[in-house]
Amino acid sequence: MTRTDTRIVTAALVVIGNEILSGRTRDANLPYLAERLNDLGLRLREVRVVPDEQAEIVAAVNALRASHDYVFTTGGIGPTHDDITAAAIAKAFDVPLERNPQAVARMEAYYAGGALSLNKARLRMASMPVGARLIDNPVSGAPGFQIENVLVLAGVPRIMQAMFEGVKHRLRGGAPMLTRTVAVDLPEGAIAETLSTVQDRHAGVEIGSYPYYRSRDFGVKLVLRAADAPALSAATADLITALTDLGAVAEEESGEAGDGRGSL
Amino acid sequence: MTRTDTRIVTAALVVIGNEILSGRTRDANLPYLAERLNDLGLRLREVRVVPDEQAEIVAAVNALRASHDYVFTTGGIGPTHDDITAAAIAKAFDVPLERNPQAVARMEAYYAGGALSLNKARLRMASMPVGARLIDNPVSGAPGFQIENVLVLAGVPRIMQAMFEGVKHRLRGGAPMLTRTVAVDLPEGAIAETLSTVQDRHAGVEIGSYPYYRSRDFGVKLVLRAADAPALSAATADLITALTDLGAVAEEESGEAGDGRGSL
Repeated sequence: MTRTDTRIVTAALVVIGNEILSGRTRDANLPYLAERLNDLGLRLREVRVVPDEQAEIVAAVNALRASHDYVFTTGGIGPTHDDITAAAIAKAFDVPLERNPQAVARMEAYYAGGALSLNKARLRMASMPVGARLIDNPVSGAPGFQIENVLVLAGVPRIMQAMFEGVKHRLRGGAPMLTRTVAVDLPEGAIAETLSTVQDRHAGVEIGSYPYYRSRDFGVKLVLRAADAPALSAATADLITALTDLGAVAEEESGEAGDGRGSL
Repeated sequence: MTRTDTRIVTAALVVIGNEILSGRTRDANLPYLAERLNDLGLRLREVRVVPDEQAEIVAAVNALRASHDYVFTTGGIGPTHDDITAAAIAKAFDVPLERNPQAVARMEAYYAGGALSLNKARLRMASMPVGARLIDNPVSGAPGFQIENVLVLAGVPRIMQAMFEGVKHRLRGGAPMLTRTVAVDLPEGAIAETLSTVQDRHAGVEIGSYPYYRSRDFGVKLVLRAADAPALSAATADLITALTDLGAVAEEESGEAGDGRGSL
């Protein structure tokens, strides 16, 4: 992956599945992709959760692929009647659905000699839009695919993650977002004006305020994010000074660098 | 709430927050609302997660309020500079933002005699679009609000849930969605054709197929959903018979009725 680009590269995610909208299943793919994309210098800018219905999938994919560098979809690529993602993507791109010969070859190799057979239902998973480029599935055989800037991944988190790790070298990231976190022992309402003043002085740094409450403990985590490391450092120092002047105990949280959230 | 209506009543959710898109925070409001709305006879049809940016919030709210009976928003109603939901909703409805006198009165009562004061930053939480109707906040004072079919709730799950429980009597639900679940001991690829045939025979029932994998155990949970109880029973019985004829062990899961997912 190239990191010389300082352009902001954006991504969107379409989570496809009635089971998420009914509350039956908790989506785990959004948090995974959010963190991994950030590490690669891509900003996840929007997520839409849509039902297993062609018109809804087409509308979401077409809206998002026009306005983002990459669109990921998760879900709906299995062998059953409710798996309609491939057909919806073909419709979104207005290209025919075909039985992808490479996908068939991979699936034949995967099922060869195993307990399961490559029957008609499973072959349905080789149906892809014309022009699709395969995404490897080391877990369960049937590949995902990419067409233009849309990457179609499985919904089962273990499979989705394996697909993503195998395809991430294709992504061209921009400036990675760096993060620093300051914990402060006052409630949001007491620091809001100070925060606003500091934010006004550092336009290139995004300062988010996240209150927390635990039994007798409360406070705010202030998360500073920017692509420019010196600007981020300056804003962090300024924020700590301003909060200290206000009488607060404001301390930068350590260990951020190692938590995989794209910190320096 | 009136349940005599057999119309399908739909809802959408806009999750507002950079912290969700960065992966820092896992959203817990979608699964909560999904289940509770279903219990009330509302179908959650779409969710959008957007950043703390006015244009993005306005676009999502306006798209969704035109196409759904209700739109819920979560997040961005605190006292800090990054809490811009109220201003964005005013913009979406093209009405002025005002200091809501009832909200001020409630907050004065809440802060009276406590350790915290109703300062300028906290008063910001009383800024609402003209025409807003308050939503009570028993947890931390500052109310949410409703304008037309848009309900603006807090992002902190404990506060969001308290707000929702206090406002749900205003929602007019339609036919509640009923659910039955059948567990089968074959993989999806082996039952897909049978499933498709059963689905074709029961157009009014939505059959979802969700494979699971645990160490040496695997199988599929088939979730049948419909508003019409006799149609749901007929489809469930037909499905079990068809899977049994195929040589599978297919059993309805018990205990569904008590799990709060809107089952009979």
